[in-house]
Amino acid sequence: MHFAAALPLQSGASLRDYHLSFETYGQLNAARTNAVLVCHALNASHHVAGSYVGQDKSEGWWDNMIGPGKPLDTNKFFVIGVNNFGSCFGSTGPMHRNPDTGQVYGADFPVMTVEDWVDAQALLLDAMGIQTLAAVMGGSLGGMQALSWTLQYPDRVRYALVIASAPNLTAENIAFNEVARRAIVTDPDFHGGHFYQHGTVPKRGLRIARMIGHITYLSDDVMNEKFGRQQKAPSPVTALAASAALPPAGLLASRGSPAALDAVLQSYKYSTQEVEFQIESYLRYQGDKFAEYFDANTYLLITRALDYFDPARAYGGDLSLALGRATAKFLLVSFTTDWRFSPKRSRELVKALLDNKRDVSYAEIDALHGHDAFLLDDPRYTSVIRSYFASILQSLEGQP
Amino acid sequence: MHFAAALPLQSGASLRDYHLSFETYGQLNAARTNAVLVCHALNASHHVAGSYVGQDKSEGWWDNMIGPGKPLDTNKFFVIGVNNFGSCFGSTGPMHRNPDTGQVYGADFPVMTVEDWVDAQALLLDAMGIQTLAAVMGGSLGGMQALSWTLQYPDRVRYALVIASAPNLTAENIAFNEVARRAIVTDPDFHGGHFYQHGTVPKRGLRIARMIGHITYLSDDVMNEKFGRQQKAPSPVTALAASAALPPAGLLASRGSPAALDAVLQSYKYSTQEVEFQIESYLRYQGDKFAEYFDANTYLLITRALDYFDPARAYGGDLSLALGRATAKFLLVSFTTDWRFSPKRSRELVKALLDNKRDVSYAEIDALHGHDAFLLDDPRYTSVIRSYFASILQSLEGQP
Repeated sequence: MHFAAALPLQSGASLRDYHLSFETYGQLNAARTNAVLVCHALNASHHVAGSYVGQDKSEGWWDNMIGPGKPLDTNKFFVIGVNNFGSCFGSTGPMHRNPDTGQVYGADFPVMTVEDWVDAQALLLDAMGIQTLAAVMGGSLGGMQALSWTLQYPDRVRYALVIASAPNLTAENIAFNEVARRAIVTDPDFHGGHFYQHGTVPKRGLRIARMIGHITYLSDDVMNEKFGRQQKAPSPVTALAASAALPPAGLLASRGSPAALDAVLQSYKYSTQEVEFQIESYLRYQGDKFAEYFDANTYLLITRALDYFDPARAYGGDLSLALGRATAKFLLVSFTTDWRFSPKRSRELVKALLDNKRDVSYAEIDALHGHDAFLLDDPRYTSVIRSYFASILQSLEGQP
Repeated sequence: MHFAAALPLQSGASLRDYHLSFETYGQLNAARTNAVLVCHALNASHHVAGSYVGQDKSEGWWDNMIGPGKPLDTNKFFVIGVNNFGSCFGSTGPMHRNPDTGQVYGADFPVMTVEDWVDAQALLLDAMGIQTLAAVMGGSLGGMQALSWTLQYPDRVRYALVIASAPNLTAENIAFNEVARRAIVTDPDFHGGHFYQHGTVPKRGLRIARMIGHITYLSDDVMNEKFGRQQKAPSPVTALAASAALPPAGLLASRGSPAALDAVLQSYKYSTQEVEFQIESYLRYQGDKFAEYFDANTYLLITRALDYFDPARAYGGDLSLALGRATAKFLLVSFTTDWRFSPKRSRELVKALLDNKRDVSYAEIDALHGHDAFLLDDPRYTSVIRSYFASILQSLEGQP
């Protein structure tokens, strides 16, 4: 959808002549009361569910959660996925033309905030004739948008599902974002953010950024379970050569266990640059893949939006005071091994909402997968979401 | 000290014609029984204590722990600090000349292991006429060397102090090392490790590596306490301008609290590249400083030595079996907020030593500072070290 009117941004700048990519699923009911807005995090888009015709592997990023008969049931709800501006998956972003200059925005794309995105989402809903959302839902940075909806447009949202999120970033969170940004910005191919004109992409920086990100999405536990200290399997020939080259150490020979034999077969490469461990191979692969499609300016902008989000800031840091404006009912979900947005951060939100006597449900899911858990299938997690939407549906049907 | 004989390395390569820088403190007693070897971690050297004449700020890295009357009392013990080869603080390393080629080693410096360092340290002791150490002591990677001493030379070490260490790296530890290495290796100024010939230094990569390292040395708690979400203070002029430019938001004006005023004064810069938060400023400073003096090849080599250390590996992963060779008495210390080498990892060592009925003391210190705590003053920590050395002294004096 195209928007001609300029959108005033929190920074004082404005965005004009922009478009937002969105997808909808299910049917808006006659009373227009069953709309659910799904907000995305760093590396996602408006394509929240389903697959595109003729495209294998085009599944939406929350396809396990959203669809016919799924926890957020598109037979009952009208689901809207919208790509935030500044992103690189369809909506106006740094790789688009700046109407003021005729040039690609690049580094000149205005710095945006969670609040700006919510404003843009509200305008999209206006254009769709939807006054009130049955619910707004998001995980991680998406959860921050869901929370911000309840503060910016308290009259327009009845339920908010805030998953694996936080009331703001900690110093450590900001630190990881900053390292990732420095990796991108100091890549010689970044050219101050105007790399498009130079026909380059700061892939080195994007790879490092993604590798750092991935470490923080996973838990130490799941990394140990999935990768541990496993070495990248040598080719059979290498293994044989290694086995022949290594004299059987007295100790190993005397024990002669299969495990000891494995250790001999999998000799270290003694290299600082070759892949030695599986975890290295995994991270390099993730970094390479990401650098092929993600926009470097978008990475800077979205991590900064994360840094800046802090609804308590204008209230002297008093979160309870800040959340006093919210009138929605809340479901908060956190995951025990999530050290990026730990359960403690969700509990801060729960406390602040309870201080305001708001209706809050909270589920702390015992999951191994760290922050990534919010995107994965876990029967306890999905059943909490399913029953919450069932209760929302009941309340909608109970409406006059 | 110069060593003419080639040192065979675990990789199969060897190091010849090398020298080790070392310092000693205190007096070796007549019986040569009071020597304590102190092993260093990534960014440290043989200069463990004291200051150089006429040089302010030249304090040794463990000066709070080692010296006359300090927990490791140099009035009683003969303390040896040795710089490991491959490092960049004096001993033979990648920036030195390879005697085989006449060229600077650079990327050709052989990959070394903790075990190789311990072998070199043992040769240094041989040359000094010291057969048996009263104790070997180290923190982090230095603790791995202390542990390895008890396995490689069980007859030559009576006590081992293994502080903030681990029996090996977890997948997450390796992952952080790998990202740091990739940042260095993909810096165009790295030139495959032969940057010396190009007159360049891969400072971008070194900065990123150090920033990542620093995040993992600190705890989330101490970062929040020291930096939190504090913004980098704007200059008075900027603050005034920001205050004048921002219309007093209805909400803020109506509350009019000093806190709200602060929030207005410290407006965001809305920039992705400027420093906005104190934590960013701190990390950039640490990265810049480190890139001025640390060698990139050394960084790769030392992080790899960390990755490779795994005494249980040749025993099918059975740490208890691996530690069976140790005969020393042990003190292990860990710090509650250390998530790089967490208390859990020290407890693994304690368990494996107890499985072998070894004499083990273990202190888990409730400290805020994360992994860095092992370098800092904490009365509980230093008193544990002090009394352990007092008991070592008693046992020495009780000797025939």
